[in-house]
Amino acid sequence: MFFGSDNGAGACPEVLNAVIAANSGFSLAYGNEEMARLAEQEINRVFERNVSSFLVSTGTAANALALSAITAPFGVTLTHEQSHVLEDECGAIEFYGNSSRLIGIEGLGGKISPQELTAKLKKVPRRLPHAMPLKGLSLTQASESGLCYSAQELSELCKIAHDAGLKVHMDGARFGQAVASLNVSAAEISWKAGVDVLSFGATKGGAIACEAVIFFDETLAQDFAFKRKRGGHLFSKHRFLSAQMLAFLKDDVWLKNAHHANAMAQKMALSLTKKGVRLGYNVQANEVFPVLTEAQDKRLKEKGAVYYPWSGRGLQCAPPAQDEHLVRLVMSYATTDEMVQAFLNEI
Amino acid sequence: MFFGSDNGAGACPEVLNAVIAANSGFSLAYGNEEMARLAEQEINRVFERNVSSFLVSTGTAANALALSAITAPFGVTLTHEQSHVLEDECGAIEFYGNSSRLIGIEGLGGKISPQELTAKLKKVPRRLPHAMPLKGLSLTQASESGLCYSAQELSELCKIAHDAGLKVHMDGARFGQAVASLNVSAAEISWKAGVDVLSFGATKGGAIACEAVIFFDETLAQDFAFKRKRGGHLFSKHRFLSAQMLAFLKDDVWLKNAHHANAMAQKMALSLTKKGVRLGYNVQANEVFPVLTEAQDKRLKEKGAVYYPWSGRGLQCAPPAQDEHLVRLVMSYATTDEMVQAFLNEI
Amino acid sequence: MFFGSDNGAGACPEVLNAVIAANSGFSLAYGNEEMARLAEQEINRVFERNVSSFLVSTGTAANALALSAITAPFGVTLTHEQSHVLEDECGAIEFYGNSSRLIGIEGLGGKISPQELTAKLKKVPRRLPHAMPLKGLSLTQASESGLCYSAQELSELCKIAHDAGLKVHMDGARFGQAVASLNVSAAEISWKAGVDVLSFGATKGGAIACEAVIFFDETLAQDFAFKRKRGGHLFSKHRFLSAQMLAFLKDDVWLKNAHHANAMAQKMALSLTKKGVRLGYNVQANEVFPVLTEAQDKRLKEKGAVYYPWSGRGLQCAPPAQDEHLVRLVMSYATTDEMVQAFLNEI
Amino acid sequence: MFFGSDNGAGACPEVLNAVIAANSGFSLAYGNEEMARLAEQEINRVFERNVSSFLVSTGTAANALALSAITAPFGVTLTHEQSHVLEDECGAIEFYGNSSRLIGIEGLGGKISPQELTAKLKKVPRRLPHAMPLKGLSLTQASESGLCYSAQELSELCKIAHDAGLKVHMDGARFGQAVASLNVSAAEISWKAGVDVLSFGATKGGAIACEAVIFFDETLAQDFAFKRKRGGHLFSKHRFLSAQMLAFLKDDVWLKNAHHANAMAQKMALSLTKKGVRLGYNVQANEVFPVLTEAQDKRLKEKGAVYYPWSGRGLQCAPPAQDEHLVRLVMSYATTDEMVQAFLNEI
Repeated sequence: MFFGSDNGAGACPEVLNAVIAANSGFSLAYGNEEMARLAEQEINRVFERNVSSFLVSTGTAANALALSAITAPFGVTLTHEQSHVLEDECGAIEFYGNSSRLIGIEGLGGKISPQELTAKLKKVPRRLPHAMPLKGLSLTQASESGLCYSAQELSELCKIAHDAGLKVHMDGARFGQAVASLNVSAAEISWKAGVDVLSFGATKGGAIACEAVIFFDETLAQDFAFKRKRGGHLFSKHRFLSAQMLAFLKDDVWLKNAHHANAMAQKMALSLTKKGVRLGYNVQANEVFPVLTEAQDKRLKEKGAVYYPWSGRGLQCAPPAQDEHLVRLVMSYATTDEMVQAFLNEI
Repeated sequence: MFFGSDNGAGACPEVLNAVIAANSGFSLAYGNEEMARLAEQEINRVFERNVSSFLVSTGTAANALALSAITAPFGVTLTHEQSHVLEDECGAIEFYGNSSRLIGIEGLGGKISPQELTAKLKKVPRRLPHAMPLKGLSLTQASESGLCYSAQELSELCKIAHDAGLKVHMDGARFGQAVASLNVSAAEISWKAGVDVLSFGATKGGAIACEAVIFFDETLAQDFAFKRKRGGHLFSKHRFLSAQMLAFLKDDVWLKNAHHANAMAQKMALSLTKKGVRLGYNVQANEVFPVLTEAQDKRLKEKGAVYYPWSGRGLQCAPPAQDEHLVRLVMSYATTDEMVQAFLNEI
Repeated sequence: MFFGSDNGAGACPEVLNAVIAANSGFSLAYGNEEMARLAEQEINRVFERNVSSFLVSTGTAANALALSAITAPFGVTLTHEQSHVLEDECGAIEFYGNSSRLIGIEGLGGKISPQELTAKLKKVPRRLPHAMPLKGLSLTQASESGLCYSAQELSELCKIAHDAGLKVHMDGARFGQAVASLNVSAAEISWKAGVDVLSFGATKGGAIACEAVIFFDETLAQDFAFKRKRGGHLFSKHRFLSAQMLAFLKDDVWLKNAHHANAMAQKMALSLTKKGVRLGYNVQANEVFPVLTEAQDKRLKEKGAVYYPWSGRGLQCAPPAQDEHLVRLVMSYATTDEMVQAFLNEI
Repeated sequence: MFFGSDNGAGACPEVLNAVIAANSGFSLAYGNEEMARLAEQEINRVFERNVSSFLVSTGTAANALALSAITAPFGVTLTHEQSHVLEDECGAIEFYGNSSRLIGIEGLGGKISPQELTAKLKKVPRRLPHAMPLKGLSLTQASESGLCYSAQELSELCKIAHDAGLKVHMDGARFGQAVASLNVSAAEISWKAGVDVLSFGATKGGAIACEAVIFFDETLAQDFAFKRKRGGHLFSKHRFLSAQMLAFLKDDVWLKNAHHANAMAQKMALSLTKKGVRLGYNVQANEVFPVLTEAQDKRLKEKGAVYYPWSGRGLQCAPPAQDEHLVRLVMSYATTDEMVQAFLNEI
């Protein structure tokens, strides 16, 4: 009963097998191997156009390197106040941004609404050069609370941002889950909506450790190779990153995995609701945030369920009472019906 | 005939199998998995004492994070003028050091002699605070030119450095090869000689992507967890790093691999010498630097041999003539007798 | 009728005369001149103990250098959400902090209450190393809204901060005005209350360009000389900084100037209140924040009054209506009765 | 007998009087005062074209901010191995460059020859992205050893740099002395020769603390206002910088001062040579580097002469013997015939 995070699973069979296959023989290093080009082509195929893409091994690296391309050392990037880049990366964004700043925006369910973005743009200090100039907007798709931005919402947000001179980054650690949930193409909720650079996650979706930074505005990509290297993120045996990404994208394994994780979340959510458990946020991707009673929480933990408490901001239900626990359950490609059922049995 | 680098091979069977085995089931993330503790214990065993150790995925990350612990943003680290940290990491040391500086020292075969270190300490500007204060010394073991520092040499260098108030870092991307070559214990050429922090390489030795930063002066380790995270180097599925390091150290696979690579280098070196080819440096670890004629170079490349030119500084033989090519051949755990013989056949 | 800022005045006669006097003859540079020692002694006298003090030319430099001593590159400093270090220094704190972060706390009148500090300490993310660890607290005395922390309030705040492992910085750009207002000694509202490092402002109080960074916790001072130099803030003709600070402190010119500025503010505030103008904040130091009607604002500007609008956060009165203007009036040592009267005449 | 540095003098009368005059009345701050525009126009006049210029208070700030505009955080700037930016600014260049690197080039008399630049361009590592890409060249005019680059030499150097994709910075802490010595216009040895950005020094030439950063390639200037502010170098009472620069340039005070300093140096040099004292470098600007005997050195110091030893690299005479002292004598606008004569009397 592991629901701690989608990074609690290993790699899906397709990815693991690709890593094994990639192990034989000698190869050029540092992304000069042929397989790197194949992975790039596969990314182009998925996004239906040519892009500049680069592989790294962690989501933090992907986000920090991507964001460093759209801000300035004295610039500000706006993001949701509960976003991963703001709260969970120990200052990586500021570090790779050479001392840039993040400013949080409040919003329901981890999402920023066009109205909230517009309001924040008016509110932040703009007396230059005393204030730091606004440079970027970072959106999380799916959000930290498991919600998805529609293509329409993204288009509005990107337009507002672009009109204000901001470039747009998308943290897509769970991009696949969003695509699966919204039943759209990858292109529709990225460059077609106005996103300039995307952190495309594979690790949570079924890889060992692999993420792609994908530039739709290719002028932003020109320094990436240097920044990745000086960040220590250029793998010598880069073939293992290429192999992961290739296998993850081929035959749409990424989407298959995402659909499974989402389906498990839907099952969990529906059953919990039927049992009278209220949920902190609507369930659109692979995360479920039930409000558990003390007794439920205790029993589940005794049975070995692994999950973590969640800080209740931007809730879409009544806040937890003193003796209630808002918790986060994350499903992955590896979550089974049995695991979900075992959890539900204790409710 | 791949001699381009020791990172041109995949992972050795023990490491690959460990990764496959580690893939099953759910696990805590970010180094909280049990296997991380086992890998730490294995490192303690190899170094014959308790240490503070941390895993990362690239040598650049290991070096940059380790060096950031022994310098200051306004401090200088001395290193060989041809060291990897100075010439091949695109400023990673300065980046993680928050703008610190590296100053190169000349020396035969990629090694710094005690005399050269003493001379440099006298020569660098010391008028504080106009000059940047000296903070660290970084030594490469085995050196970029394939030579090894003896335990005695290291002790002398560390004493000079410590007497001048400098902490000592060792870039051990090929530490195993040095241990194998010198026939000493890991402890003797690290903390017993005075090294304060070691980048212990596994990637070149047979892993997929894994290095350990090992602090012998544990007071230097206190900020490491934060710096690794903000550098984007804390793996979520950290179990895959733990598995690699564990398998690499267990039953001394690392030493077995290193002995093999070194033996291939010795065979190559002896045969080349017999054939009248002169070598740029003495061969002590897994690298051979022959001076090839134009004809040899051409024929080898036609036959598909992969290797790269080497810039001829600190040579231990007569410099290459206009029509000669100093090149680098690197052997790894995966280099076979047949590969070496095939190369020699073309000479 | 210049009320735009206290930096709109030149230097007071004592400081200007000291600069003129310091101009003759030759002198050692970079703070090695004798006058630097005299300035240090004068600072010791004012603070009734030995301290480590350093002179720089701007408040931004003083704050950024001081704060860099109490945080880490991956650390957080808490401060009021409307503080100068957060809103008006274009990221200087992050720059000198090597990518550290500031987090704002809301509070009436630019002040943080002990309750608000305690609440924030509970609310900020603390899951290390994903969250950035808390390292410092920065308090502004007098606040951006012209209020003063009492010695008692400071003691409580410093105790809470210290108990949580935070060091305390005070932005004292208007420290003199606070001392004058509270009728306490400099020591009582700095180190005796628990402040670890103080930016002691002279520029706004009557100097040309001079601030002192004063370390009460002297272990924090050890890197200062290097950081000041690499920030480009070590003056070669440092005697001119020494001369300013010496003249500013001697015979308590700083307090005399502050008392005058405060008195002008009191006069302005009382008269405005009598005329029915409400004030955004209580007036305790040298700033007055009246809510002007459209007509008043227009008339004053026509008469050449210089002042700026103020963003209405943390107000202590009813917020300005659509057609009202909250503005800031700053008095300085150079503000005259006539100027105040001229302003009042237009109300 | 003060020859320690040209920053050992106070301000020349014209500058001091301008500061006194600027002190009266109220004024806009942060460079919004009218006098800032006048200073800019005066700079345009001196350089015979429109430029983007900014005032700061120290040479280190001017150099570090200027160089940050022509490199990248992962880029390299080439400079003379004994340049001020490399040896005397405690890493300011790296700090403002967000971890960029400086690489030194050897050369006689603190000057880089076109041949040496070309050779270095060939020698530095160029395997991208492992090596840091070359971005800039910094030349010091007059050099640290008191020599001047001719307009012809500069043109050649700038052409080589530009052809290699490098932008060119000039450290003109003693630019006036070079103009005076070469008998050229300011334009001829700056933008007409190909310089992209100049640190134009006033402090050593007769100001209190004032330097201008002058962009001839104005596209490089776009971030300057932000970088200056976040470096803490935007003066609130900016009028005092404007006043200094205005007075320094008006009626060519800067040139008059430089001619005087140079003339004193010529007198000193000629007389020393006549007395059989050899000089380390040719004397072209305001510095003289005699090789003193032990006895001379001792006697001069007993008489109160202030000067400092100089490290003997790139000498243009026989190196000092064991018992000889190479020292640096710096003349300024304030150096008198009597001081020079007093010094000579002891030889």
